[in-house]
Amino acid sequence: MIHPNYRLLVISTSTIYGNGYLEYIREEILDFLQTDELLFVPFARPSGISYDEYTNNVVTALQPFGIKVTGLHTYENPKEAICNAKAIFVGGGNTFLLLKTLYELGLIEAIRNTISEGVPYMGSSAGSNLTGLTIGTTNDMPIVYPPSFDALQFLPFNINPHYLDPDLNSTHKGETRETRINEFHKFNRQTVIGLREGSWLRVENGTIELKGDLTARIFKPNQSAIEVKSGILEESIYL
Amino acid sequence: MIHPNYRLLVISTSTIYGNGYLEYIREEILDFLQTDELLFVPFARPSGISYDEYTNNVVTALQPFGIKVTGLHTYENPKEAICNAKAIFVGGGNTFLLLKTLYELGLIEAIRNTISEGVPYMGSSAGSNLTGLTIGTTNDMPIVYPPSFDALQFLPFNINPHYLDPDLNSTHKGETRETRINEFHKFNRQTVIGLREGSWLRVENGTIELKGDLTARIFKPNQSAIEVKSGILEESIYL
Repeated sequence: MIHPNYRLLVISTSTIYGNGYLEYIREEILDFLQTDELLFVPFARPSGISYDEYTNNVVTALQPFGIKVTGLHTYENPKEAICNAKAIFVGGGNTFLLLKTLYELGLIEAIRNTISEGVPYMGSSAGSNLTGLTIGTTNDMPIVYPPSFDALQFLPFNINPHYLDPDLNSTHKGETRETRINEFHKFNRQTVIGLREGSWLRVENGTIELKGDLTARIFKPNQSAIEVKSGILEESIYL
Repeated sequence: MIHPNYRLLVISTSTIYGNGYLEYIREEILDFLQTDELLFVPFARPSGISYDEYTNNVVTALQPFGIKVTGLHTYENPKEAICNAKAIFVGGGNTFLLLKTLYELGLIEAIRNTISEGVPYMGSSAGSNLTGLTIGTTNDMPIVYPPSFDALQFLPFNINPHYLDPDLNSTHKGETRETRINEFHKFNRQTVIGLREGSWLRVENGTIELKGDLTARIFKPNQSAIEVKSGILEESIYL
């Protein structure tokens, strides 16, 4: 079911509390990439920072460990840059903005083609949302209107990054994350994997492994959510 | 700037902690409606409940106080029902679903026309989002894809309902509400009014009054957010 060429690192969050950018997951990233050249996609612009600023953050985090990072925005022909990429990292920020920009630049198919040839794709937060079927389970604010909610569709389910358990002491009446995902399932059939901060999926050889210390929460329509431990996920978990 | 015929009650939340549905704001609603017939729009389906179930909640909350409530979904011709409405209440739930349904049924213009003739419009949460320019500052999950993010545009700004201050003790790395609204302002010019739970706007005679005990938080592009107290809002606050 998972394309055997896909090599994906689907990260819930770039940063965990008390750590620097990508610090907690650096060893995993270096082990995953198996190349020293990384093409960074800065389009999600967290807090609205510029492409250059955002790319510099990645350079600072990974260059000291032998990874040469370039921003996709610095190429005259971004489609060509994707086709020639040795590895791609799509950073977090606003998922709507990220997807809209990729559609506008006509890069969706280029990324799909490159990744299907075995080029590693690493996504964090918004970049992880894109690995699923749609962005319908993003937590982000719809600050811009993309031409579609369809994502890169490497995985036959949706991701909910930064998955957050209900705060049982809260007096706030906004919806909990689980309520929102249950609403999603009134109109959509696909499984949703709630990835807590500090968790990630590593996809290789047609299998999906949940990594990190925490369990992930699996949501399917008309079923109670279940928790799965780290390790290889059986197909029955996510189909 | 505000159409002198508009009569709007723009409520952050239908329910505050420890209270029944619409209980805390019932006196205000009865004072505002000035009619005993209310057309309820149940399309936002909180937690995916059915139109009938949702309408029954409103009946239970308001019928004992002399308000006859009917669900828009029970009319063969919903456009006609809106044109003939004495007052309209658009309930909370999922803003994307609500807006998509209104577009699909071709009801956006009908509601605009009816409200411009002085028919009272009451909205809660998602229903309040619709009174602004766009749904770009909703907190909801994009569970369905509407044909546009443009809302009813009664007010020359956007609403952020259930406005939530940052939790300074949180270790979660997802964006705070303020960060999200600041991201919105990288791509949008309109003021955003963050309405805390227990606050509402009452719009009449071309003026906007902030009501409830709490301050509201006002966001404009390239400016620090400010807090405003309850009372009539000067145009300079929201333009």
